[in-house]
Amino acid sequence: MPESLPMNGGNGVYSYSKNSKLLKEGLDVMMGMIKDAIIEKMDIKSLSSNNSNIASFHIVDFGCSIGPNTFLGMQHIIKAITHKHQTQHKHNQISPEFQVFFNDHVTNDFNTLFKALPLERRYFASGGPGSFYGHLFPSNSIHFVYSSYSLQWLSKTTKELMDEKSRSWNKGKIHYIGASEDVTSVYIAQFEEDMEMLLNARAKEIVENGMIVMILPGIHSELDHSQVAAGFNVLKFFESSLIDMINEGIFEEGLVDSFNVPLYVASPKDMTKVINKSGYFSIEKMEIIESQPILVEADAKSLIIHLRATLEGIFTKHFGIEIVDEMFARTMNKCEEISSWMKVEYKKSSQLFVVLKRKIN
Amino acid sequence: MPESLPMNGGNGVYSYSKNSKLLKEGLDVMMGMIKDAIIEKMDIKSLSSNNSNIASFHIVDFGCSIGPNTFLGMQHIIKAITHKHQTQHKHNQISPEFQVFFNDHVTNDFNTLFKALPLERRYFASGGPGSFYGHLFPSNSIHFVYSSYSLQWLSKTTKELMDEKSRSWNKGKIHYIGASEDVTSVYIAQFEEDMEMLLNARAKEIVENGMIVMILPGIHSELDHSQVAAGFNVLKFFESSLIDMINEGIFEEGLVDSFNVPLYVASPKDMTKVINKSGYFSIEKMEIIESQPILVEADAKSLIIHLRATLEGIFTKHFGIEIVDEMFARTMNKCEEISSWMKVEYKKSSQLFVVLKRKIN
Repeated sequence: MPESLPMNGGNGVYSYSKNSKLLKEGLDVMMGMIKDAIIEKMDIKSLSSNNSNIASFHIVDFGCSIGPNTFLGMQHIIKAITHKHQTQHKHNQISPEFQVFFNDHVTNDFNTLFKALPLERRYFASGGPGSFYGHLFPSNSIHFVYSSYSLQWLSKTTKELMDEKSRSWNKGKIHYIGASEDVTSVYIAQFEEDMEMLLNARAKEIVENGMIVMILPGIHSELDHSQVAAGFNVLKFFESSLIDMINEGIFEEGLVDSFNVPLYVASPKDMTKVINKSGYFSIEKMEIIESQPILVEADAKSLIIHLRATLEGIFTKHFGIEIVDEMFARTMNKCEEISSWMKVEYKKSSQLFVVLKRKIN
Repeated sequence: MPESLPMNGGNGVYSYSKNSKLLKEGLDVMMGMIKDAIIEKMDIKSLSSNNSNIASFHIVDFGCSIGPNTFLGMQHIIKAITHKHQTQHKHNQISPEFQVFFNDHVTNDFNTLFKALPLERRYFASGGPGSFYGHLFPSNSIHFVYSSYSLQWLSKTTKELMDEKSRSWNKGKIHYIGASEDVTSVYIAQFEEDMEMLLNARAKEIVENGMIVMILPGIHSELDHSQVAAGFNVLKFFESSLIDMINEGIFEEGLVDSFNVPLYVASPKDMTKVINKSGYFSIEKMEIIESQPILVEADAKSLIIHLRATLEGIFTKHFGIEIVDEMFARTMNKCEEISSWMKVEYKKSSQLFVVLKRKIN
């Protein structure tokens, strides 16, 4: 069973909903691209088995978290599909109804999500709980799949990383950034295994010619995997806070040796390889989009608070809340160092934008 | 917007999940009847638009609460439909896949529900949040609707009950049991309005020949509305605790005058009237089932704890938690009186069992 890594629920200072602004502004940039992909690549007539009008159009957001970004995404996607439908049917047909399935782990805070559902919406809203690496919907029941900033989460931490007899033992580190090539290879293999599971599950669920749009942190294929954009590099500051605590005898080093953030930043080359291996989808678009990180003008404190909303859950599950509180506090004390580093290194952020179409069987 | 009256969430002493055993044992009795209804009345071939095999069978439980009863219900229903499918298709066809939508108010504790989903299940699970008096699913998308012990909840408290200028002002009372005929008429009118909304919404959502099975507290058509089965009569003990508190000056009487439990116990005659008025469904079965209440051998304390799990939310929303704590404590002190009353009056419980089929347009 895949690990569950929920974002922070509720509405507190460190909640995901209060800290999703960075994602939202990145999303605004992406919305134009999604619209273009729908207008250019979607053939609505081809989505129904007998080329008739689709009465009900089914959309899933995989890894929706608790809003509000998912609602914004759905609003834009439905607007674009409705526009495409009107163009293709020359206004002769009634618009389809839309059913949106909000997917995330069963441990996601669906209560907060459902309470936040916009009252004015053009779709019927459903929750689809469970890991997106598994089969979650009936065969041939989904027309459009969307996933934003979720597929970078691996299904689990590969055992070899925690095995001191393995060449890939990731001693004294919490991620592959700055680690050995052996460690990086294990992360790559886990990404490939997971993504293939995901594509095979979606291949059953998505109708022929149905589409997938994925947005996730990305890296140029020609770069070394350790050269991921700066946002992830900040993990090294958390790592050094943890190491400081070990050196002061606050906890045993084994606790860091057995912890690895299951997060992988994929390149177009990585993604293309696994899509081709799975074989069910054609690649309609695959690009690295570079944008200026939203927080480039902000201070280090805002960056750390944002990362806490995203990462606290997974750190706490392993280290317990006391160590994690201390780790974030210590990292906060390094604000000056982090600020200097941000000015030099934190200049761009890279997203992998992928559009796929389900091949005809 | 209909009022939201969630059962108590979580897993505490007064939680619904800890107190749903009464419903579960009543459910066991009903499961045989549901199975019979499916075997006798369902025509699976007629459920698809072109008499072909249904690839994916969609079921909704309206008012599912947080489990585990809903899971037991779904398990039995899917078993019966699969059996019927095999009989009708003489084992020549692949069994359909099942998608279950668990519906309840957006304020329902879906987090607890999703975490409790059985790992071994023969269906894809989705949450469908929202009031069942509104339109919640795309047109012609649902094959089977189930609702157990939920449709007795009215969508709201009718204004006239709280209007001191109205003949139906329900002064000093919290329900129509023991109130004037004018008050009862207002409850009946609200039931008819609500049930018609519900049937009209379902008529859009359910495919032709699709079925509805409803189980709700019921009363024989020839009885007076105040003669509801004893379980509801216990409301009078809560009422008298509240009145005692008013007499002691703990709160103002206006607070009771403006409160009415929006709960109606329908007769076959009530239900038939509104189904015929709506006109979209044929009545396949309509009976009052009498059973011995589960708690007939239990003590008054257990009954009060059970009712607290069901009713606490709606009382607290109006009175606040301090008054409600005191009300339950005072009612607990009447255990002896309630026990004597139970021995005489609490002998049977009546359920209304209804099977409907969506007519062909």
